[in-house]
Amino acid sequence: MNKGKLHLVPNILSEDGHYCLPAYLTPLLSGLKYFVVEEIKSARRLLKKLNASINIDQLEFWMLNEHQSEIPPEVMHRLKDGDEIAYISEAGCPGIADPGQNLAAYAHQIGAEVIPHTGPNSILLALMASGFNGQQFCFHGYLPNKQPLLGQKIQYLETESRQRNQSQIFIETPYRNQQLFQELLKTGHGETKLCIATDLTGKQEKITTRKIREWKNHLPEMHKVPTVFILYAGIY
Amino acid sequence: MNKGKLHLVPNILSEDGHYCLPAYLTPLLSGLKYFVVEEIKSARRLLKKLNASINIDQLEFWMLNEHQSEIPPEVMHRLKDGDEIAYISEAGCPGIADPGQNLAAYAHQIGAEVIPHTGPNSILLALMASGFNGQQFCFHGYLPNKQPLLGQKIQYLETESRQRNQSQIFIETPYRNQQLFQELLKTGHGETKLCIATDLTGKQEKITTRKIREWKNHLPEMHKVPTVFILYAGIY
Repeated sequence: MNKGKLHLVPNILSEDGHYCLPAYLTPLLSGLKYFVVEEIKSARRLLKKLNASINIDQLEFWMLNEHQSEIPPEVMHRLKDGDEIAYISEAGCPGIADPGQNLAAYAHQIGAEVIPHTGPNSILLALMASGFNGQQFCFHGYLPNKQPLLGQKIQYLETESRQRNQSQIFIETPYRNQQLFQELLKTGHGETKLCIATDLTGKQEKITTRKIREWKNHLPEMHKVPTVFILYAGIY
Repeated sequence: MNKGKLHLVPNILSEDGHYCLPAYLTPLLSGLKYFVVEEIKSARRLLKKLNASINIDQLEFWMLNEHQSEIPPEVMHRLKDGDEIAYISEAGCPGIADPGQNLAAYAHQIGAEVIPHTGPNSILLALMASGFNGQQFCFHGYLPNKQPLLGQKIQYLETESRQRNQSQIFIETPYRNQQLFQELLKTGHGETKLCIATDLTGKQEKITTRKIREWKNHLPEMHKVPTVFILYAGIY
């Protein structure tokens, strides 16, 4: 095995969410020179916030995201040569609903060490707080956003939740949150439970679990705010 | 909505894993008086480690775990009366593969605030580091430990992983890790990928991803050590 190391570094979920990061990440990141990032702005902001005296111009950055999913050849060489590299997500934990997984897969292929670091993750925080089954759960990413596919998918997730006693977790682009919510009310069974977790770790954090029939008298405030949806039709 | 608050507090995953916890948990926990815990020993140890001057005898503890899954009536009263209570898991994040979910569900019912805190979680850390699909994944808890059910379940998870392009995450009681590993080698397809993540955040942390046919020449060191298994037969 070579000595290359890939650090998977979580980023904050909300503007004022640095309090969630463990303190040891500051000296760790301050000692590294090579960074692969999902988005340059949020990664620089994280580094600067954790260590105001860091000289960002002396660091090297490469992009890896949905538009640039090929691992840069220089990153491959660095890892093979035994260098330490950090991958920083745009928000939350690398490799969970983001493209950092390619890089982790490559590191395993060449025998480099892969080190995941603890930090905030909206899927996990929402599930913890939902009150739903945390022994069996599924994350589905984004649901289809067009009809009739969206309605069919919701029905399918609900049926499977009931049959398998499984919590079904999904997300949506923030400006479409309300459309998804309306479709959940329309399609879901009245007794099915729905947890809506908005602005996690932020000042407006709000996590509410209700039956779908109870949600019908409420419109949650989630327009353009990052939100995690969890549906549960099992018996917990 | 009443003013009761339920804090969901992660516990460390390994003996020396306190470095993973965000610093703000120390003043938060030092200011609370009421604790519901999965296991008394690990919760006291966490409190004492975070704040050596804490007077544990002045705090109130109630148990909530697989043996005592009824929420103590006094805890219900406290939450209804507007008190702040913390639930501390035995290891990792409350409500994920542990019984804290009952308490979170109750808090939602009475309109108390539910606040999930960031901390280490072995499922999430393993998935981040696996190099597998983090856009679609399922956690299945414990698999059946008897034959032929175990073999059937592994085949079923593998088929579903291929069809749905889904990472399949599961755990086992540590002293049975090696049996599960042997069964995975026997039942799984040679090209299916298997990630074994052992002693996460601990001194012996080791995360390795290989195809099943490649694992056949290796026996990972995981006997009696907490381990997360992830199987992936999709195309990522």
